[in-house]
Amino acid sequence: MRTRQGQPAGGKNPGERSLLERIRSRAARQAADLRLGIGDDCALLAPEPGEEVAVTTDLSIAGRHFLLEWHRPEVVGHRTLARGLSDLAAMGARPLGAFVSLGLPVELTRKRGSRSSWIEDFFTGFLALARPYRTPLAGGDLAQSPLALADVVLVGAVPRGRALLRSGARPGDLLYVTGRLGGAAAGLAALRASGPKFRELLRSHLYPQPRVAQGLWLQRRGVATAAIDLSDGLSTDLHHLCEESRVAAEVDATRLPVHPSATLDQALNGGEDYELLFTAPSRTRVPRSIAGVAVTAIGRIAPRDRRRPLVALMTGTGGEPLEARGWEHFA
Amino acid sequence: MRTRQGQPAGGKNPGERSLLERIRSRAARQAADLRLGIGDDCALLAPEPGEEVAVTTDLSIAGRHFLLEWHRPEVVGHRTLARGLSDLAAMGARPLGAFVSLGLPVELTRKRGSRSSWIEDFFTGFLALARPYRTPLAGGDLAQSPLALADVVLVGAVPRGRALLRSGARPGDLLYVTGRLGGAAAGLAALRASGPKFRELLRSHLYPQPRVAQGLWLQRRGVATAAIDLSDGLSTDLHHLCEESRVAAEVDATRLPVHPSATLDQALNGGEDYELLFTAPSRTRVPRSIAGVAVTAIGRIAPRDRRRPLVALMTGTGGEPLEARGWEHFA
Repeated sequence: MRTRQGQPAGGKNPGERSLLERIRSRAARQAADLRLGIGDDCALLAPEPGEEVAVTTDLSIAGRHFLLEWHRPEVVGHRTLARGLSDLAAMGARPLGAFVSLGLPVELTRKRGSRSSWIEDFFTGFLALARPYRTPLAGGDLAQSPLALADVVLVGAVPRGRALLRSGARPGDLLYVTGRLGGAAAGLAALRASGPKFRELLRSHLYPQPRVAQGLWLQRRGVATAAIDLSDGLSTDLHHLCEESRVAAEVDATRLPVHPSATLDQALNGGEDYELLFTAPSRTRVPRSIAGVAVTAIGRIAPRDRRRPLVALMTGTGGEPLEARGWEHFA
Repeated sequence: MRTRQGQPAGGKNPGERSLLERIRSRAARQAADLRLGIGDDCALLAPEPGEEVAVTTDLSIAGRHFLLEWHRPEVVGHRTLARGLSDLAAMGARPLGAFVSLGLPVELTRKRGSRSSWIEDFFTGFLALARPYRTPLAGGDLAQSPLALADVVLVGAVPRGRALLRSGARPGDLLYVTGRLGGAAAGLAALRASGPKFRELLRSHLYPQPRVAQGLWLQRRGVATAAIDLSDGLSTDLHHLCEESRVAAEVDATRLPVHPSATLDQALNGGEDYELLFTAPSRTRVPRSIAGVAVTAIGRIAPRDRRRPLVALMTGTGGEPLEARGWEHFA
C-alpha cells in the first residue's frame, strides 16, 4: 500500500500509519507468484515462462455500485474483488495478484468506538475472498476523498495464445452459461423491499462467487471459442460478445437457468451474476457441470444478417429482439 | 475501455458510446507489447521471456490531487500518467501498458458547445505523454461520479531479479538525484499566487517528465543499489528508502540541485518533481548526466544509530534532523 500526500507517508498521523502497516502485514501472509508486494514503487509479479499477463480494472463508487447504508464493508470488499476475479475467469486466467485503490472519507479509516474501522472490515471481506482464490493483495493506493470509492485491479496469467476471448464465436456454435441467472438481481430487489435485515438471504447479491476454476477448465481443455463474464447482464454482455465476434445469437428462453427466486427479466437483464457465458462448436462435448457448477446450453450463434436482430430471444411462439438492457445499479 | 452500468454498455446513450469508440480507436494506434487492448474482459500484455511484471496504481482525486479550475484536462491527463510512469522509472522497468479508471460527472463527458469534451481533452494529454514513452493505453473503466477522479495503473517489465528496489541501500553508499528539485512546488506556488494565466511558466508543475530512460539505464548498468521516485518530496521519500533499506542518510544541503525558481524548503519538501533518488556504492563511477538529465551526488548512506536522526541535513555548521514533511497538495 503506497501512501500519498495528505496520508500518513510523512509519519504525521501515527494512527493511520499503523493501520497501513496492519493491512500490509495481513496482505503479506498470502503471497504466491508475488515477488515483491506492498512497500516499494511497484509490486513485482512473476508469470511462468510462456505466459501472457491479463489485466482488468473495475471502479466501484458509493451511491452507484454500492450503498454504505446497505452494504457492510466486508460485502463491499468481497464484491469489488469478485468483479475483477470474474474478468480473469472469463479469460481463463490464473490470478497473480490484486491491487486496490481506495478513496475514503477520513471517518471510514478510524475505529468506530471499540469496533474496527470501515477500511479494516473492507479488507477482511476482500482477503476472505482472495485467500481461496490464491490472489495476494499486492498493492494499491489510499487517498482521502469526500466520496467512498474502490478501484480494483486484477493481474492474472494465461499461457500465450490460450486466453478465452470474446471474439472467437462462430456461426453454429452453441451458447452456454454456468450456474443460474438472476439471483443477484432478485437478492437486490429483496434488499430494496425489506431493508438490510434480510441480508442473510441475499448471498448471491452480497457474495457472488467468480467462476475462476470454470474459466481455467475451459481454457485448459480448449473447449470454448469465446467467453465473457455476466457482470452487466446476459442481454448486454451477449451483445458485447456478438459485436466482438461479428456474429449474431439466438437465446432459447425456455432453457435459461433462471434462479428460483428470480424473474425471467432479472435473469436476462439483472447483471452481477458473475457467471460465465461461453460458446463452443456444436460437435464439442461440454459437460453438464464444471468444478461443481452447472453448465447449461441456452442457445446458438448465427451469422450476422441485417434483416434479423443481433440477439434474438426465442420463445415457443417465435423470436423477438433481445435488447441490451444492462442493469442500472443504484443510479 | 470497459463500460459499466449506467454507462453506454447497453447502447442507451449513443453519444457516450461513440465517445468510447473514439477513445478506443485513438488508443489502438499505439500498441507495442500489447497483445489485446480495449474491448475484452481483460487486456493481454506480453513481457519478454525472463522478465517480471511491475505494477503500480495511483489514485488522483479532484480537489486533492488536481483542481478542475486550475488544471486543464490535458494537464490532468499528463500528470496522472506521469505519476505512474515515474514509479516504473524508479524500478528501472520498461512500460508495457497503462490503464485508466475514470469517475466523472456526466457533464465532463459531453461536448462543450463546439469544443471537445473534458474527457477527450484528458486523453489528448494522456496520450501525448504515453506516445514518446511507448506506453499503449490498454484498458480501463468509466463510471459516473459526482466527483472527478482518475486511478491510473501502469504495468511494466523488468528482467527477473534486476528491478531497482528501495531496500538495497547500504552504509557508505552515496546518494544521487536526477534533475533539479523544487521546481514543481515553485510552479504550484506561482499558480496559487497568480492564477491560471501564468500557466506557460509552470511546466515542471503542469507537465512533469518521468525519468523512465534514466531508470532503465541504472537497471541495465547495475549501478544503483536502491531507488525511489520523488513524488512525495525528498524528505519523505528518503525516509521511505531508509526504512526499506534499514539504513540512515545524510543530505548535504549545499549540494542539492535546487531549481532556480525554488526555495530550499520547496526542494526538500515540495513533492511531485518526479526525479529519481538513488544510491550507489562510493567506488562506483556515476556519470554527471544520464540520457540528457543531470545527476547530482547529494549525500551518503550511514548505518542506523538510535542516537542520530534517521535522515540528517548537513549544513556548513553541522547537522540537523530532516523530518518527513511530504507535500500536502490541495488539502
